[in-house]
Amino acid sequence: MKHNRYFEDKVQSLGFADADGDATVGVIDPGEYSFGTSRQGRMNVVSGVLWYRVPGKPWLSAGAGAGFDVPAGVTFEVKAEVPVAYLCRYR
Amino acid sequence: MKHNRYFEDKVQSLGFADADGDATVGVIDPGEYSFGTSRQGRMNVVSGVLWYRVPGKPWLSAGAGAGFDVPAGVTFEVKAEVPVAYLCRYR
Repeated sequence: MKHNRYFEDKVQSLGFADADGDATVGVIDPGEYSFGTSRQGRMNVVSGVLWYRVPGKPWLSAGAGAGFDVPAGVTFEVKAEVPVAYLCRYR
Repeated sequence: MKHNRYFEDKVQSLGFADADGDATVGVIDPGEYSFGTSRQGRMNVVSGVLWYRVPGKPWLSAGAGAGFDVPAGVTFEVKAEVPVAYLCRYR
């Protein structure tokens, strides 16, 4: 298990791997952040509401139980007004 | 946000607080662990299958989307055969 810290610790995650591949669970503190992706992934919100914008699409939101796909090799933005817990699975 | 490590880093969590109170998201690596609780909480499995035993009950399992309540002031046991991601909410 690997502990990751980003944006002055305002985004942190725990990385693990299981039969479905690599994954992280994490928390996004309130704020707006840009992430660059190296791999394709699926973000699922576990708690809170996450606003997100992937290239070519408008800002959209996902609440607990919802999520969105992120292609490889792009920059995407997220915005949280409350702390958001998420699960990210890589493909 | 607070990063917590237990059992030689085989259980790690990220603590946060929102309108629903205090919560942690974490990962439990394969193994068996005993936790003492100071506060009442609800454990929800986000990924994987978690076996658990709370006082007076047999071993039971919870998969993704399921969970169980843990009273304050008890010791409970969990057992993971694969890495398990969870969300714990305190009351």
